[in-house]
Amino acid sequence: MIIDCHGHFTTPPATHTDFRKAQLARSADPDLPEPVLAHASDDEVREAVETNQLRLLRERGGDLMIFSPQASAMEHHLPDPEVARTWARTCNDLVARVTDLFPAHFAGVAQLPQTPGGEITDAVAELRRTVSELGFVGVNVNPDPSGGHWTAPPMTDEYWFPLYEAMVELDVPAMIHVSASCTPAAHTLGAHYLNADTSVFMQLLQGDLFGRFPTLRFVIPHGGGAVPYHWGRFRGLADRLGRPPLAEHLMANVFFDTCVYHEPGVRLLLDVIGTDNVLFASEMLGAVRGVDPTTGHYFDDTKRYVDAILTEPAAAQAVFERNALRVYPRLAARLS
Amino acid sequence: MIIDCHGHFTTPPATHTDFRKAQLARSADPDLPEPVLAHASDDEVREAVETNQLRLLRERGGDLMIFSPQASAMEHHLPDPEVARTWARTCNDLVARVTDLFPAHFAGVAQLPQTPGGEITDAVAELRRTVSELGFVGVNVNPDPSGGHWTAPPMTDEYWFPLYEAMVELDVPAMIHVSASCTPAAHTLGAHYLNADTSVFMQLLQGDLFGRFPTLRFVIPHGGGAVPYHWGRFRGLADRLGRPPLAEHLMANVFFDTCVYHEPGVRLLLDVIGTDNVLFASEMLGAVRGVDPTTGHYFDDTKRYVDAILTEPAAAQAVFERNALRVYPRLAARLS
Repeated sequence: MIIDCHGHFTTPPATHTDFRKAQLARSADPDLPEPVLAHASDDEVREAVETNQLRLLRERGGDLMIFSPQASAMEHHLPDPEVARTWARTCNDLVARVTDLFPAHFAGVAQLPQTPGGEITDAVAELRRTVSELGFVGVNVNPDPSGGHWTAPPMTDEYWFPLYEAMVELDVPAMIHVSASCTPAAHTLGAHYLNADTSVFMQLLQGDLFGRFPTLRFVIPHGGGAVPYHWGRFRGLADRLGRPPLAEHLMANVFFDTCVYHEPGVRLLLDVIGTDNVLFASEMLGAVRGVDPTTGHYFDDTKRYVDAILTEPAAAQAVFERNALRVYPRLAARLS
Repeated sequence: MIIDCHGHFTTPPATHTDFRKAQLARSADPDLPEPVLAHASDDEVREAVETNQLRLLRERGGDLMIFSPQASAMEHHLPDPEVARTWARTCNDLVARVTDLFPAHFAGVAQLPQTPGGEITDAVAELRRTVSELGFVGVNVNPDPSGGHWTAPPMTDEYWFPLYEAMVELDVPAMIHVSASCTPAAHTLGAHYLNADTSVFMQLLQGDLFGRFPTLRFVIPHGGGAVPYHWGRFRGLADRLGRPPLAEHLMANVFFDTCVYHEPGVRLLLDVIGTDNVLFASEMLGAVRGVDPTTGHYFDDTKRYVDAILTEPAAAQAVFERNALRVYPRLAARLS
């Protein structure tokens, strides 16, 4: 079985984006009426994924995608907690419609109602709702609601602990995933996403979060940002800062995905990190959607890279299936 | 000849750090007297490098280091332009003492007096002074004086153009190098440095800076941050954003160093980017100073990695010497 652990609903029905526009308009002008979501039909929802994510999943030989709302549209930089709550609920409910329509092909991951400097309480409540009521198997956590200005405490800070306690209780992992950048200095897809991955890994290296939460699990997407490429730097920094070796300190709890869009990068990832800590993913339809002229294949058809590198069946099965079932036990339960 | 293009004076004499302490104390309390730099003797300056950078350069088979003030100590986040001017002058004058004492082993690169939101005029003046009076061959430019909050305009913005005009006129390249992080979310050495490298490359991809300044040259350190590992992502983003292919758009003007502290990372860098755009460097004494237990050698002894990978003499010579002389023509002039 081929599980893609990182897909976003980047192609929602028009009623969904219309609702968001109306919500933002009312944020700017409170005299406007409270927006109401127009109901998209099952056919509209079905078509939105059948012509996009599900089509590509099938064409590329995948079976199931772990699916969450569009990351850049989470827009956690907006300060109003009520806007964040309503938007997260709306996005998660839409993902739940996809997972209900295609239970064999999609499993849900939640967007949280985060805001810059906001309480974590709302995030905990939405996590509980999506897991217990919608059957979601994981959650996306944004380490920088400010959108590139990095005003939130590190993810090792006790600010986050109520969320971690709920994750541990529910046995769901978090993917670390920022939203749109609010600074022209850091492009959302080409800088902010990768930088967040790198920053959070370093926060974990500095802290002792998994000493306190031994079963907490994080997936760091986009191949771990800069981390595998600079693995020697991080091993050396752990030594210099008096932290334990990375393998024992972090690698029972931290996993990287394969959203690296050329074979040399995926090869380095698998070589350096090893197949026990890497989960197959494509991020489609994500940052990069075109065809690589040097190969004639889509940049984000990452299965081709993994297939070329992992010729040993047990290693391939770990990356394509076994690690995902281990990291997302609610997915395993859902499938069995 | 082996040229290390990225070394910092991280081991200055005590008089230098004492001056900085007094300067910061006076910033906090203007009633204190203006600090005066106590003169370090030539022997003290000599010893500071002979027991550190010069010793390691010799032990590892290097010949010359392109040498700049300690990056994390630039502290461009402090808002007072006068403090920034005095501190940059003091740091650059100290580097000049090293390059005067050891002209065969060190060539200077300037720290600029930058501040968050400050005018670029002071930076231009200090660049001109260090090149024309101190014989420096390059400059470090900080794309984020705020120290991790990313409030400065992208490096493609006209804010920077007076600096680029001076660089072009003087024919000196800039290394892109941030200073200390002011947010606990981004560790200086393990996140902020790498993130800045990635962010600036993406800024250049989005813009058309080298259309306007065809001879401007940037060295992006730390192996280019996350860029070579995610080369497919950047090629794909260029395509998606309607920008020219990276090779023609950026790679006549952008170079990466080899400050990547394990062999698989350096191998990917040289494989993906090619030997024409990579300059040998170690960043010593920099982020990582220990011995890699898996190899028994120093993490930052990057010459070992390059030696193991580039067995063809012309390729090795490009990375160790030829590219540096091409990117830093004032170094070539100084040596001939």
